[in-house]
Amino acid sequence: MKKYLAEFFGTLILIMLGTASVVIAKGNVLTIAFAFGLAVTISAYSFGAISGGHFNPAVTTAMFINRKIDAKDALGYIIAQFLGATAGSAFVLYFVKSMGLASNALGQTDFTKISPFTALIVEILATFLFVTIILLVTSDSFGNPPDLAGLVIGLALAMLIVFAINLTGASLNPARSFGPAIFAGGSALKHFWVYLIAPEIGAVLAAFCARFFEE
Amino acid sequence: MKKYLAEFFGTLILIMLGTASVVIAKGNVLTIAFAFGLAVTISAYSFGAISGGHFNPAVTTAMFINRKIDAKDALGYIIAQFLGATAGSAFVLYFVKSMGLASNALGQTDFTKISPFTALIVEILATFLFVTIILLVTSDSFGNPPDLAGLVIGLALAMLIVFAINLTGASLNPARSFGPAIFAGGSALKHFWVYLIAPEIGAVLAAFCARFFEE
Amino acid sequence: MKKYLAEFFGTLILIMLGTASVVIAKGNVLTIAFAFGLAVTISAYSFGAISGGHFNPAVTTAMFINRKIDAKDALGYIIAQFLGATAGSAFVLYFVKSMGLASNALGQTDFTKISPFTALIVEILATFLFVTIILLVTSDSFGNPPDLAGLVIGLALAMLIVFAINLTGASLNPARSFGPAIFAGGSALKHFWVYLIAPEIGAVLAAFCARFFEE
Amino acid sequence: MKKYLAEFFGTLILIMLGTASVVIAKGNVLTIAFAFGLAVTISAYSFGAISGGHFNPAVTTAMFINRKIDAKDALGYIIAQFLGATAGSAFVLYFVKSMGLASNALGQTDFTKISPFTALIVEILATFLFVTIILLVTSDSFGNPPDLAGLVIGLALAMLIVFAINLTGASLNPARSFGPAIFAGGSALKHFWVYLIAPEIGAVLAAFCARFFEE
Repeated sequence: MKKYLAEFFGTLILIMLGTASVVIAKGNVLTIAFAFGLAVTISAYSFGAISGGHFNPAVTTAMFINRKIDAKDALGYIIAQFLGATAGSAFVLYFVKSMGLASNALGQTDFTKISPFTALIVEILATFLFVTIILLVTSDSFGNPPDLAGLVIGLALAMLIVFAINLTGASLNPARSFGPAIFAGGSALKHFWVYLIAPEIGAVLAAFCARFFEE
Repeated sequence: MKKYLAEFFGTLILIMLGTASVVIAKGNVLTIAFAFGLAVTISAYSFGAISGGHFNPAVTTAMFINRKIDAKDALGYIIAQFLGATAGSAFVLYFVKSMGLASNALGQTDFTKISPFTALIVEILATFLFVTIILLVTSDSFGNPPDLAGLVIGLALAMLIVFAINLTGASLNPARSFGPAIFAGGSALKHFWVYLIAPEIGAVLAAFCARFFEE
Repeated sequence: MKKYLAEFFGTLILIMLGTASVVIAKGNVLTIAFAFGLAVTISAYSFGAISGGHFNPAVTTAMFINRKIDAKDALGYIIAQFLGATAGSAFVLYFVKSMGLASNALGQTDFTKISPFTALIVEILATFLFVTIILLVTSDSFGNPPDLAGLVIGLALAMLIVFAINLTGASLNPARSFGPAIFAGGSALKHFWVYLIAPEIGAVLAAFCARFFEE
Repeated sequence: MKKYLAEFFGTLILIMLGTASVVIAKGNVLTIAFAFGLAVTISAYSFGAISGGHFNPAVTTAMFINRKIDAKDALGYIIAQFLGATAGSAFVLYFVKSMGLASNALGQTDFTKISPFTALIVEILATFLFVTIILLVTSDSFGNPPDLAGLVIGLALAMLIVFAINLTGASLNPARSFGPAIFAGGSALKHFWVYLIAPEIGAVLAAFCARFFEE
């Protein structure tokens, strides 16, 4: 039970801090990238010590494929992640309303300049790289320093967000897109399928890629 | 005695560097967030080695509840923190006056767009997350790398400041609000009770939350 | 074979994330510097664990001179790096076209305000310092903490990019200049010889400098 | 001899990267702060492994007072640091001229809005805190993680630069002020005495402060 709660808290922190950096702090690209990325880092070294620190259904999927987690826990983690993301976005909605800001701008992911196909490619590619990095940096096969994994993973997310933010909003995480979308509705909710499918495909590819390198 | 002096110096650095990044350097959100956050990191690895590195009455409260510090030391720490914050703000006041800047803009925390109730929620929530992260990352129960704790805690403060800066000024620390408020007066002093009560409530909740995860 | 693929992936990430931060994210100097630098850091702790993490023909040249890699692997690495850079730039070209941006602005390196001679000096000097730092920080002779090498090397690249970005675009890496130049053509392709020769000269000087310090 | 050369290179990197971030990259406050601070970090983990990584006559003074270095080496280090700073600024002068920028704007330290007395206070205070942090984080007395010292010291310089940049240009280092001042001349050279005396006073105070905490 504690590990599900740890996933809930970690994902809440990730989505609340990340999307608040967009709509409340109105930060520049680097600020937003660090808000999401370092939120993962700080959650990884605190709540992550209890659950392994996935905070992302795509990560849990890859860990399940590579048999680092069983089916029951994988399901529990994913439910906890979606609930955490929803709670994080509910807080942001409350704060945005309190400030008199538009209540349909909650840091949701969407794309307007590119086609759904290109958006799928971006999210698949970015998540593939992100999850491959996670699997390799936490692998026992290469002598990587385990202490630094949480920092490296957070910096990887941050830099992949710099890459993808102007293309798709840089989700790489179905829960990250779900939380704001259910409150914001509209186009973000209509396009949610892209942010559900693409990160999962990227994670599956990453699971096999990491297995190839580890063998 | 040395540990009280260490808390005095660490809190002085935190408040002086943090508030100067707002009113003297006029930095952007990320600059301000890193000024406060990395001030904690650098103080944690220097003065923190002597005192444990609280630099924040809310942190000391949580450490006292979870029996990591006794009542006499907790009192001494909190007094040292308030004195350090006051000294830090006195320096900033002197430098601001020397530059011919407004002597009532000292980087004090305040809120204008949200209600006191929402401000309480923001400070309770942010401090709860901050102190929970501190307690988990410094806990012996999870095999976290102790060397990185000071870096993780500083990055946690930085990212929580990005989250809360446009809501409440992101205090999370009664001493941080006290220092500038006593020199700036006005609304910041009138609202000081929010920044005194809310972080303490957040810290108490965090103490119980961390105990739950550690058990 | 796996190590060549690791060099391919690492260089792809470096060039794709780095140049996208310029032309897609349109980041400021620090954002661009961190995009390139931290791309090296995250690749070093994941794919670098398999190959040693060169991601740069100039680095491979220095490693070859100082007998850390044999001729066959050096050649394989350099081919993989050029292929990875080309793949990274092909992705950026695709995304830039999808967004309707100019397809000849791909984050290529070039110089307009300084002479080719000065550009050579800048790239030789910056690469000399970069590769010397790499060789010293990864050397067994000084008791440096090996765990931090990937972070230090990434930060070194980031800060050398801040230094050289307005002079030459801050390549320090023939593959980094090759990828965007073959798709962008024009002046960047015409000036590619500078970015091929200068980093290699810098790397050779660095190999001897590091050997001097290590002896 | 090698250790003097290491101090030469480290100080050259510090002054060249730091001042270039101001006059060539025209970075914002955080960019400049990280350029100086992380230059120290990367030099500390490479050249610093050979010499101890002072790169600053004020640091060498404090190390001499606390008997971590003998008189002959202290003198050699300080000469190497002034030569390294001069070489770093000579490069910046050359690049600035090549770009057609003003050849008397070399990132020199100066103050215009505050009195010499206030400038002295700022530099004494900032250097006192900087050198105290250095001495405590590298001390054997507290169980600090030695691996992280170079990172903590670099971040400390960066954050103290955010604090002091709009007051005095944030020198904290006589060599850092000397290099640009001898080429830029004018007010920066006339005020050089402030940047020579104040950091040294701060360092002496820090040496005694650290000794007090260590005893």
